[in-house]
Amino acid sequence: MTRRIDSEEALIARYLAPLAAGTPGALGLRDDCATLACPAGEELVLTVDAVAEGVHFLASDSPRDVAWKALAVNVSDLAGKGARPIAYLMALSFPEAPEESWLAEFSSGLEEAQQALGLKLTGGDTDRRPGPLTITITAIGSVPVGRMVQRCAAQAGDRLFVSGTLGDGALGLMLLQRPEFTDAWCLTPDERAHLVRRYRRPEPRLALGEALRACASAAMDISDGLAKDLARMCVASGCGARVEALRLPLSPAARKALAADPSLVAAVVAGGDDYEILAAVPETRAEEFRGRAAAGGLPVTGIGEATPAQGVSIIDSEGKRLPLLRTGWDHFG
Amino acid sequence: MTRRIDSEEALIARYLAPLAAGTPGALGLRDDCATLACPAGEELVLTVDAVAEGVHFLASDSPRDVAWKALAVNVSDLAGKGARPIAYLMALSFPEAPEESWLAEFSSGLEEAQQALGLKLTGGDTDRRPGPLTITITAIGSVPVGRMVQRCAAQAGDRLFVSGTLGDGALGLMLLQRPEFTDAWCLTPDERAHLVRRYRRPEPRLALGEALRACASAAMDISDGLAKDLARMCVASGCGARVEALRLPLSPAARKALAADPSLVAAVVAGGDDYEILAAVPETRAEEFRGRAAAGGLPVTGIGEATPAQGVSIIDSEGKRLPLLRTGWDHFG
Repeated sequence: MTRRIDSEEALIARYLAPLAAGTPGALGLRDDCATLACPAGEELVLTVDAVAEGVHFLASDSPRDVAWKALAVNVSDLAGKGARPIAYLMALSFPEAPEESWLAEFSSGLEEAQQALGLKLTGGDTDRRPGPLTITITAIGSVPVGRMVQRCAAQAGDRLFVSGTLGDGALGLMLLQRPEFTDAWCLTPDERAHLVRRYRRPEPRLALGEALRACASAAMDISDGLAKDLARMCVASGCGARVEALRLPLSPAARKALAADPSLVAAVVAGGDDYEILAAVPETRAEEFRGRAAAGGLPVTGIGEATPAQGVSIIDSEGKRLPLLRTGWDHFG
Repeated sequence: MTRRIDSEEALIARYLAPLAAGTPGALGLRDDCATLACPAGEELVLTVDAVAEGVHFLASDSPRDVAWKALAVNVSDLAGKGARPIAYLMALSFPEAPEESWLAEFSSGLEEAQQALGLKLTGGDTDRRPGPLTITITAIGSVPVGRMVQRCAAQAGDRLFVSGTLGDGALGLMLLQRPEFTDAWCLTPDERAHLVRRYRRPEPRLALGEALRACASAAMDISDGLAKDLARMCVASGCGARVEALRLPLSPAARKALAADPSLVAAVVAGGDDYEILAAVPETRAEEFRGRAAAGGLPVTGIGEATPAQGVSIIDSEGKRLPLLRTGWDHFG
């Protein structure tokens, strides 16, 4: 017995307004606008990203995981800029009136993500239209005035770092789509669960914010794969990059998968769904950056350097360029 | 011979980045975040609304009109709060890679709307997924701190005003869906064009901002029909309302349509797509409000008053309550 929500007002009052509790500018979500004051000495950092069923998450994903991911991918953009999250607006589009049980789980997942990531719902829009369930979030953070870490200021000679480990999210998605890979890659249940969780529950690297603002020339989160996002940073900065594949940080589970099937290096280099941070750091600040990151509980790994020559090269253990047949996600490519 | 866009980067560089020119915080749309400073002494006002093909606009509407409407419906929310527009973020979702000719027209329509409405593109997101073409805009404005005009503070005894004329947008949509109505309603080509334009090109009533901030207890834009939006204001404010149908302001074209078919009063009362402003104004400020509105070039019309008793009554010329069978747009109702 499923019960579907019967009005926009009920949806807002029952499931969304509690997410805005304690935020005066949200006006209980009873207005069609919210107010937001910028913290003194800071400027706002804004980003918008949509996640859609079948494109960014799977129909089989739980509503709690969907909620987490929708908010986390936006907060990850803020994390890549050294910004602190404040609030978000959410536009929901349903193909049919959603079930109350789905809404209860979804809003509970948002509550969990809000608490973990430090921001609150402050406004939004809800409607029904054909097409996949879509969640479009505008995330708002802040940085000290003039201190947002851009992607366009990497300098030749800068050391390139990434946070965490690469490829887990892409491998997790492959496991969900092809369960037989668990055995083919010789994974334990825990290793499988780790990769799947990395796909479903990306963790924005907010702990790196201070280190980025203090040390980085340029930074961004890696959501479309290292190869593509590094190329974007290089194009924006007018430089190139040389990365050593052997230095790319892997989780134990990913390492096992690559041992079983070396071609999976493509998922590590270009798979997307990593939500780690890529940073270019002047050589003179590299040690400080490592130290600050470690102090924040989030180790970073040097993977190569920015070069004067254009183009991104990823070099294997024999010094040969990896062919990058698939260079990351492009919706129109 | 149609040419489709072949990458997200090309779409942004060719068609969207020019819309962000002159806005330093937009970073040329080459980053995944934008920065925004709040004007001194002001706080930000935020709203988000999606428009989708087949739901909020017609597949036959020109890309220029679609662009105008997508931005205007958001700016109309700001106008209803007495806010001044500053910037917007736009998430575009295409079912297939769009044609370059469509993008050229669409971005040209946005440029026109930006200039008319006084805000600029500062960031966004573009992707491809099934479902209708959808444009989700987060509009950002500002008001002096603490001066946003809310919808929840109407008081019993307040005079109720609306700007402009009601029903034109709903009648314009009916004309587009049923061309034979032009003759049935005895409309001239100019009158038909007026109603259709009101549907396709809503004009946010920004000129009313100062009058609202100075005089109104409560205000909001009417996008889902007077009956529904007035009921929302009353529920939020804990009061009721009594409106006289004869006082509802009509354009000459709408007046002619209603003379031909009196049942069209339903479109005036509950049709939606008006994007006029509904304001509750204390009796002592009513003349000042009229005067300020007229000085801003935008006449307002008194239509009734807020009452202590709950509920919205719309009274006909004989003092009888109009039956409100259709009480406005609800996506889930």
